[in-house]
Amino acid sequence: MDIEIIRKLQEPNQSKIVLLVMDGLGGLPIEAGGKTELEAAHTPNLDELAAEGICGLHESIGPGITPGSGPAHLSLFGYDPIKYQVGRGVLSALGIEFDLKSGDVAARGNFCTLDEAGRVADRRAGRIPTEKNVELLEKLKDIELPGVEVFLRPVKEYRMLLVLRGEGLSGEIADTDPQDVGEKPLEPRPLTPEAEKTAGLVSQFLSQVKDILADEQPANFVLLRGFAQRPDWPMVKDVYGLRALAIAAYPMYRGVSKLVGMDTVQSGDSLEEEFDLLQKHWNDYDFFFLHVKKVDSYGEDGDFDKKVHLIEEVDQFIPRLRDLGPHVIVVTGDHSTPSKMKSHGFQPVPVLIWSEFCRPDEVKTFGERACMQGGLGPRIPGKDLMAIALGNAGRLEKFGA
Amino acid sequence: MDIEIIRKLQEPNQSKIVLLVMDGLGGLPIEAGGKTELEAAHTPNLDELAAEGICGLHESIGPGITPGSGPAHLSLFGYDPIKYQVGRGVLSALGIEFDLKSGDVAARGNFCTLDEAGRVADRRAGRIPTEKNVELLEKLKDIELPGVEVFLRPVKEYRMLLVLRGEGLSGEIADTDPQDVGEKPLEPRPLTPEAEKTAGLVSQFLSQVKDILADEQPANFVLLRGFAQRPDWPMVKDVYGLRALAIAAYPMYRGVSKLVGMDTVQSGDSLEEEFDLLQKHWNDYDFFFLHVKKVDSYGEDGDFDKKVHLIEEVDQFIPRLRDLGPHVIVVTGDHSTPSKMKSHGFQPVPVLIWSEFCRPDEVKTFGERACMQGGLGPRIPGKDLMAIALGNAGRLEKFGA
Repeated sequence: MDIEIIRKLQEPNQSKIVLLVMDGLGGLPIEAGGKTELEAAHTPNLDELAAEGICGLHESIGPGITPGSGPAHLSLFGYDPIKYQVGRGVLSALGIEFDLKSGDVAARGNFCTLDEAGRVADRRAGRIPTEKNVELLEKLKDIELPGVEVFLRPVKEYRMLLVLRGEGLSGEIADTDPQDVGEKPLEPRPLTPEAEKTAGLVSQFLSQVKDILADEQPANFVLLRGFAQRPDWPMVKDVYGLRALAIAAYPMYRGVSKLVGMDTVQSGDSLEEEFDLLQKHWNDYDFFFLHVKKVDSYGEDGDFDKKVHLIEEVDQFIPRLRDLGPHVIVVTGDHSTPSKMKSHGFQPVPVLIWSEFCRPDEVKTFGERACMQGGLGPRIPGKDLMAIALGNAGRLEKFGA
Repeated sequence: MDIEIIRKLQEPNQSKIVLLVMDGLGGLPIEAGGKTELEAAHTPNLDELAAEGICGLHESIGPGITPGSGPAHLSLFGYDPIKYQVGRGVLSALGIEFDLKSGDVAARGNFCTLDEAGRVADRRAGRIPTEKNVELLEKLKDIELPGVEVFLRPVKEYRMLLVLRGEGLSGEIADTDPQDVGEKPLEPRPLTPEAEKTAGLVSQFLSQVKDILADEQPANFVLLRGFAQRPDWPMVKDVYGLRALAIAAYPMYRGVSKLVGMDTVQSGDSLEEEFDLLQKHWNDYDFFFLHVKKVDSYGEDGDFDKKVHLIEEVDQFIPRLRDLGPHVIVVTGDHSTPSKMKSHGFQPVPVLIWSEFCRPDEVKTFGERACMQGGLGPRIPGKDLMAIALGNAGRLEKFGA
């Protein structure tokens, strides 16, 4: 359902909605005939929610597509991830919680090594450590460009962020990273006439970088890609009428929440702290997005048992969540991260929606195979879940008379 | 998922995908409470694939719609059959494996009978036999038109194919078939200004046909419909990064495969020969479309038992298929052809997808009712299956970071 339809139907009330996301929740059996991580986990409290609620599996981007975390979360927030795409530069900024303003242009940078002929010898400058990165950016900090502010921030290892702030900028600029060694870096070519000024500024920036880093080794230049502007998207307050709070330990997830207008609060890694924050802010918001990162991390590590164990830990906090008296609870993941694959997977993700008014199904346990039989179906688009949550919360008025 | 999204995500690897299509696979019980053809068939090997894989039923065109074979196969190849429509003239050309070039205009023709007043007395000229058709085309073979080549080919009985080849042609021309007896044939009216030249050429063609066949009986004229140009569609090599081979006994299926850029090889009718060809070409391609026509033919004949038996025969070749070591196997039909209906049906079609990374479901046998409980769901759009196959093959990179 298009978000603009939802906007017209929104009907504020006093209800509270909790979206609990275990990152990378979906899994696979290690051996044929075995159980997935979620199926193997002992989760009496999630099972109770599943039994009282309605279950299914969602695809956050589309069939067969492995979701990145940014677009997958936008989908869970009800934003069509195909329509609302974020450039890599913006994602980099979100990832370090750089406070992008409307109109800013951000690009992801790599420190690289150029040979004497000016060709790329190493696209990652030997993967220099983050400390070296910080040291190099210190040398670049006095670069000035006419009429714009320049921000440079270290990310991890050889990765950095460039942000230009000023009037009349555009993100429609081609990557300067040639993607192959032995090639010269490309010029920052404008992709539209409106981007000519910005491309000129980037060109001046790169020229100064080259001069300043000329005698450095191995990192003597920067490759830029994913030029993008902070998008100007509908805000959850406007389209849903929700005062929304994101509670997350990792900056990327707070960043993507900010893009749709949520307030954010930084949690530590412990579940205790996340649920403490939920309780602390309970009276101030209508919608709470609670993000548990490490479920994904253990999947990426291929650590089936630790993933199982963390899911079981989350399960232990469900009674505390229910004691707060939410009207709607959604429990799901943004994508699958099967330990077997040690990476994000394309497989649909289990989801349960609990409220007094959901249509109950026959699902009694929260697991991939059980959810396939659920009332939400085995392949609901992730972007449809938000509207169902709002419907369960009584926050959407009747469509037509 | 739009094919242009898939194009951006494609990530080549060494995996191999087999799409085994039993034409008209879906069926119905003859009597209420009975089994469908597939349910009645003893298929231990397909059942094993179903048990290890993920199952469902697909709709190749849309809910309630009875698919034609051309669009149904396009759907299985991942092409939205509503967006990628083929004109009847092009389908006729495909059906006899006429090698249409880009820019060619093709039309389906009927030999017909005109009365003395020039009105259509029989739209099919008494269903003249194919031999007569060939004889009549021999008389028409010297027709010349200024600046274009004219190709005439017999199809079955009274049906023929007209193809014009040259510069600046257009397929936007109205049918000349009035569809009713007692009416005069219509002029080949241009539907756009660009089609005026082509319409003029067709008009000259028809005038010469009328002169040459004036004394023939019963076939003394030709009605034309479905003017169309060979479409210029994305090729599977470009959008999926697949070197694809179609193995099929019937020209129409090789033709539709060619439209999306597959190589094709003609098989005989025996399953042995089809699987021999699969084995022979195993190392040269990434994707194999294997078409078994006669399952549909028996359905069209209303021969429940023969349809069951052929499905059982196909089952016996599954171990041979698995021995080749494919990474992904998709088994399905293009549409249903229930023996009970003796025709294509609108009913969804059973499908199984097998790979190491598919999310297993609880389905243990390959049949219509069993598949309804499967993880692909009971009504997945046929066009989504290709992306899921690519996902299972690890051939799509992550969407967003």
